[in-house]
Order: sequence, then C-alpha cells, then structure tokens
Amino acid sequence: MDFIKTPVKGMRDQLPGDVQLRQRVMGMIRDTYSRYGFTEIETPAMEHIENLSNKQGGENEKLIFKILKRGRDLDKVLEKGGTDFADTGLRYDLTVPLSRYYAANAAVLPSPFKALQIGSVWRADKPQKGRFRQFTQCDIDILGDGSALAEIELIAATSEMLSRIFAEVGIRDFTVHVSDRRILSGMAKFAGFDEEDFGNVFIILDKLDKIGLDGVKDELLKAGYDAAAVEKCTAIFAGDFSGKRPKEFCAFLDETCLDPAVPETLEQILACVAAMKREGVSIVFDPTLVRGMGYYTGTIFECTIDGYGFAIAGGGRYDKMIGKYSGTDVPACGFSIGFERIITILQDHAESIAHTQEARVAILAEKNLPNEKLSAAFARAQALRAEGKTVTVQTMKKNIRRQIELLEAEGYTEIEKVYKN
Amino acid sequence: MDFIKTPVKGMRDQLPGDVQLRQRVMGMIRDTYSRYGFTEIETPAMEHIENLSNKQGGENEKLIFKILKRGRDLDKVLEKGGTDFADTGLRYDLTVPLSRYYAANAAVLPSPFKALQIGSVWRADKPQKGRFRQFTQCDIDILGDGSALAEIELIAATSEMLSRIFAEVGIRDFTVHVSDRRILSGMAKFAGFDEEDFGNVFIILDKLDKIGLDGVKDELLKAGYDAAAVEKCTAIFAGDFSGKRPKEFCAFLDETCLDPAVPETLEQILACVAAMKREGVSIVFDPTLVRGMGYYTGTIFECTIDGYGFAIAGGGRYDKMIGKYSGTDVPACGFSIGFERIITILQDHAESIAHTQEARVAILAEKNLPNEKLSAAFARAQALRAEGKTVTVQTMKKNIRRQIELLEAEGYTEIEKVYKN
Repeated sequence: MDFIKTPVKGMRDQLPGDVQLRQRVMGMIRDTYSRYGFTEIETPAMEHIENLSNKQGGENEKLIFKILKRGRDLDKVLEKGGTDFADTGLRYDLTVPLSRYYAANAAVLPSPFKALQIGSVWRADKPQKGRFRQFTQCDIDILGDGSALAEIELIAATSEMLSRIFAEVGIRDFTVHVSDRRILSGMAKFAGFDEEDFGNVFIILDKLDKIGLDGVKDELLKAGYDAAAVEKCTAIFAGDFSGKRPKEFCAFLDETCLDPAVPETLEQILACVAAMKREGVSIVFDPTLVRGMGYYTGTIFECTIDGYGFAIAGGGRYDKMIGKYSGTDVPACGFSIGFERIITILQDHAESIAHTQEARVAILAEKNLPNEKLSAAFARAQALRAEGKTVTVQTMKKNIRRQIELLEAEGYTEIEKVYKN
Repeated sequence: MDFIKTPVKGMRDQLPGDVQLRQRVMGMIRDTYSRYGFTEIETPAMEHIENLSNKQGGENEKLIFKILKRGRDLDKVLEKGGTDFADTGLRYDLTVPLSRYYAANAAVLPSPFKALQIGSVWRADKPQKGRFRQFTQCDIDILGDGSALAEIELIAATSEMLSRIFAEVGIRDFTVHVSDRRILSGMAKFAGFDEEDFGNVFIILDKLDKIGLDGVKDELLKAGYDAAAVEKCTAIFAGDFSGKRPKEFCAFLDETCLDPAVPETLEQILACVAAMKREGVSIVFDPTLVRGMGYYTGTIFECTIDGYGFAIAGGGRYDKMIGKYSGTDVPACGFSIGFERIITILQDHAESIAHTQEARVAILAEKNLPNEKLSAAFARAQALRAEGKTVTVQTMKKNIRRQIELLEAEGYTEIEKVYKN
C-alpha cells in the first residue's frame, strides 16, 4: 500500500514556531481566566451521534465527521441493508460536549460552575484559505447563574484576555457589542412577522453590516414576507440609534413585545463593565447584533477589534440547552473565543512580537570521540542546562560553517566544539 | 431524538482537578525537553487510512476508529455495494503522524530535528479499568541523527523529566533498561531459528519476566519451533547475566550473528548517560528487553520506576520508517512517555502533592444590588485581580453558610460580602 505525505484534506501540520505561538496564547488564556475563577475541563473528541444531531447546532450538523461502527454493530447494519453506519461523530463545537458534561457531572461540580475549555473541533467544511477541517476552539461558560453577574464576569475576563494577548503587537482598541435576543424577537413581533419566521428574519437582518439596510429590505421582500412588516421592521434601523442606551432604544416596544427587565439588565451589564475601566475596551449596546446560533435565549455579545471587519469572540445566554440533557433547565452563559483568528492576526504581526531570547548553546562533537571525551561533553551540557540554558548536543558535520549558520537560525548563539585531539 | 448524558463508551470526561494535574505535568514535560532543544509540533487527529494500515502499527491497526466517507464518495461505495466506507481514521499513535510530518516538512525543519509531541490518540480497545479509548501520548524523537548522541540525549532528557515530575510525590529511583534489537536477532540466529520466525520468537521471549524461563521454553515448544533451537536460545538466559557489560554478554556471538559495533555503541550510551549522574537514575544493559513494535531497527530502551511492575516510558531506533513515506531513509530514534500512567501514579499519591495555595477571594453580591453598588463590587474584584489574586463574583444565596462552605472547599479562603444597605 502506498504512503501519503500530505495531511488529510483540509487539515494541517503545525510547524514548531506556530505551535510555540499557539501554546503561548493558550498559556495567557489559561492564566487570565484562572484569575477569574474559571477551571479547565476536557471532554472526549467523540460524541454520541444523537447529541450532535440535536438541531441546536445549525449548519454545523451537516458537517459532522461520523465514525464508522465496528464489528457486530457494523455487520448488523450491512445485513439489514441500512445506512446508519455511525453511532458517534467528532464534535463540531464545545457547547454540545459542555452541556452533556454538566448534565453528567453536575453533582461533583461547584455551582455556579465557571468552565474553560480549549480543544480541537472538526467540521467537514469546504476547505479554503484560513478555514480548516480541524481547528482549536476556546470556550468559557458560567453554568448555574441566571443573573447578569455571569455576563459581566465573562465580558470582563474576555476583555482582559484580549488586551493582554494583543498588547505586544500594538493592538489596543476593542469593542464589546451587547444586545439581547429578546429585543430582536420583540422588534419582529412589533413589526408583525409570524413567530415561526423569526429565525429566518434574523438571518437576513444579520447581513445588515454587509449589504446595508436596502439590501436587507430587498432580501426580506424576496423571501416573501409581508411588505408592511418589512417596512415597519427596517424603519427601526433607519434612524440613528448609535449611542442610544437600551431603555431609550427599546422605548417603542411595549410589555407585550418585550419584558422591561431585558433593557434593564443590559444597562446593568453596560454600567458594571464600564466601571471596570479597561483601557482600550469600549462596551456598546448594539441592537443590530444577531449571533447565528438558534440556542441563545437572552443576552448576546461579540468582541471586535477596531479596524478589523470580523468578531474575534462571541457568545450569549442559552438557558434551555442543558435541560435537554439533564431534564432540568440550568441557566448558562458563554463566550466562544476565535482562537484561530487570534493566531492569524498575531502571525500577521509576527515581526513585532518580542521574543525573550534565553541563552541557547549547541555543543558540536567530532565524530568517533572516545567515550571519555563524549561523556565529558554530555556532562558539560547537563551542567549548562542546570543553569537554565537550552543546550543541544550534535555530531559535527563536514560542512561545519553551514551547520553553525543553521544552528544560529534556530537561535543557538553559543557554539562549543569538542574535538578528538 | 434523545440526549445521552454519559460520554461515548470507553471515553471519559476530565474533571477540573484532573485537568489541572494533567496541564501541570504537560508544562513540566514541555519545559524539560525544551531545555534539551526539542521543539513541539502538532499533526491532525485524522490520518489517511493507507498510512494507518501500513503494517507497522501491529495490533493497533485492528483498533482504528474509521471516519465515514461523505457525500458523493460514500454514494459511490454504496452504489457499487463495496465496504471501503472510510478513507481516513483517527491516529492510534504519534509515530505514524510524525513519519508523515517529517516526510512532508523536512525541507523547512532543522537537521537533526528534535521533536516533541503531546496529543490524543484513539484505539477501539476493549474498555477496562485504567484503559481508555482516547488517551494522551507524549513522544519525543530525534530525526536525522544516526549516531548514539540521539539515544543519549533522549535518555538524559527523559530521566530528568521523570525525576522532576515524580520528585514531589517522593518517587526518586528509576532504571533505564537498554538493549539493541540486533542482539535479539543475533541470539535467534545463533540458536538456529528461521529469520521469518524471529518476530514471533521475540513476542514469546518478551514474556520472560511474567512466565519465567520455563514458561518461555514451553511456549516456544508449543508453537512448534525446533527443540534444539529452543534449548540453545533459552540456555543464553539461564546463566546470571545481570551486571554484564554489552561486549561481555555478546562475546558468544560472532560477526555472522552480530555486528561488533552494536555492543560498542551500547557501551558508549551507558558510559555517557552514567557520566551525567542524575541522582536516583540507574542505566543498565538488559538483553531480555524486547519492545513490541516491529519497526525498531537498533537500540531499544525502557524506563521503569523501581518497585512498579511496568514501564513508564519506552522507545528505540527506527531507521526505516520515514523512508517509507519520503522514499529516502532518515535515521530516527524516539521515546514514548506513558503519560496516562504517570498521571495515574501521581493521582495515587495525590495527598502528598503540595499545592501552591495562592490567595483566592470570593465576592458575594446580595441580589438586586443597585448598579452603583454592583459596579463598585466588580471594580474591587478587578483591583484584586490586578494584584495577582484569583477572584470570583457570585450572587449571594439564601443559605449563605452553605455557599461559603462550598467556596472554601474550592479554595476561596477570603470571602467578601456586599449588601444593598
């Protein structure tokens, strides 16, 4: 059988420099969230196919890498001529596993439970530049706290984490956009859309920043929605609402459309995050915020880097998800960090990353050294390592000048040579 | 569809305390090997099925989790009534991926290349106590160095890593067992076995420490091997060979059975590792050492903790593996660390692990605090975090005494309460 050198389609090998950067960023993430009282958990890469196909995962459910059944289980399917070849699949996000994990382990976990997850997820997406079929996700979640304290802690911790990570490449200004799914629903209801259409209406509304208000209007009409509702809905966004506080913006929605506690809570979140005054971080109420996932039930939020056209973190409250596993609803709120986007941005700024250059020593041993000489070279290496230096011991090559050049490129600035005579 | 709380069969959820321990051990591994000049790499979890089924993986190839083909690829198989449902699978070790990685990326990697890998592998093994279907492997390898310097660096680094990790639970004595596959082959040849039977003979020889010399003899005879060869082979191990140096032990093997450079190189490795004098670490020549994998071509080694009946690290030289991918042989030598075994041993000694107890503060906010009070509480949390403290902010519960007990169990020793009035 032939061997194949390249990685599986859409997947990638990580070179040493990239792994080092990824590990360093993971270290900063762990360190920051840990100071906010988050503890790390891990779940298996594989999940039951039933859990992955729970209709909460949206488009991702079409992208599941399924694991083939084995032995008798597979034989049975084949005998029956069935097509349910898989009973497990690779996870496509960390939210499904977290919900299952909490349902299974709640008895031994604190409440509220502040969880950090950093792990690979897999999606059989069409491979394209910067999008891979295996990538790292980083999620933080607070389970068991229905109050706005959860949102505030999540936003504060994430702002600090982003500020720390990006400080060294000179990126200092972030905006946290906050809204509530129920404000969208309230507006849709106010405009006169049918409740069953809300989901699709939101998907179109989400394109506002890309296609503009006229584009949204066109798409809504093309989708066949009532012209009066479309007009009433888009009119809401026609005026200037930037800088408006939640209560002020929501004033047109009466209690049948929106629980007054919703803007009240948003004001609380805005006030508390603002009070923590992290330099460079602004928090704004943004009623155009949608967030794609169907499982959000309340607050939604997103972090953007000023000047970049995409979110690098996003999340919200999903109070109904864990109940689907455990039978009892548990309030839950989480942030998903765009780990791969962060890495890409840092790589784009690679030249400005200051490397702490610790001393690196290469000991080059001439070929066929007698054992006493070679032993002495290794003992010397050991002594230098005990001083905290990085040391490698290599056989001296014929082209020693080239060997030294390459070692210097690897950061070995001190070269020691050991000869037979 | 129903949701399932438990993890997939044979897999496990990692609780916060366990993740913390695992992360700490990974940190020590990374730190130690990094000082020996090893750099970390990462490969995808999925590999081409051709690479996984390369007959080098031994029994593991029967345990592959295969990934179902998708879309048109799967349709084609079904139309034809075929059974090749999978073209990829989850990796069962880190050696296959490393060989592929090196073949693909050698041009941009240093030579010799010192690689560290820490990652999950998957095997559809029969689940049993302490054996899971997803577990972490940790491999270190030196590619492109055919000299004994590779073995010496690997053994030195691994001894230091084990000493560091186990020091805090009071385990200080390790033994590194070293031999060479070619000594086994030489003995088998000397005894008169057919070369095609060597593999099976070694598998039986490997049971020596479990079933004793008589047991080995019985099994060899039962397997139908020539009685004279069995007698001649087992006679080698009948005498006392402990403490014998490689050259001394191998004296009975002439040049047709063993290249004299083999014991010579072993003596060099023993001398150099001994010269590094790591307290508690002994290195011994052990001609009974087999190591299961068929791909070893030279030196083989294993680390044992004195008093424990199993190896916690093992490896050897495999000079022919990478050539199967790249077409050009590249000398290679590696150590596989029994990461899960290390974790199990540390967990058994959990009570003796000293925890660095940094200050942890819980701020309890009474329900429905006015925004100014709540903001102030969060600002206070932020100030404490800036001092390096771990701080969590929670809503005060009705049973505050119980809440504080639980927080204290989590390590929150300082409790601050914020009331409305």
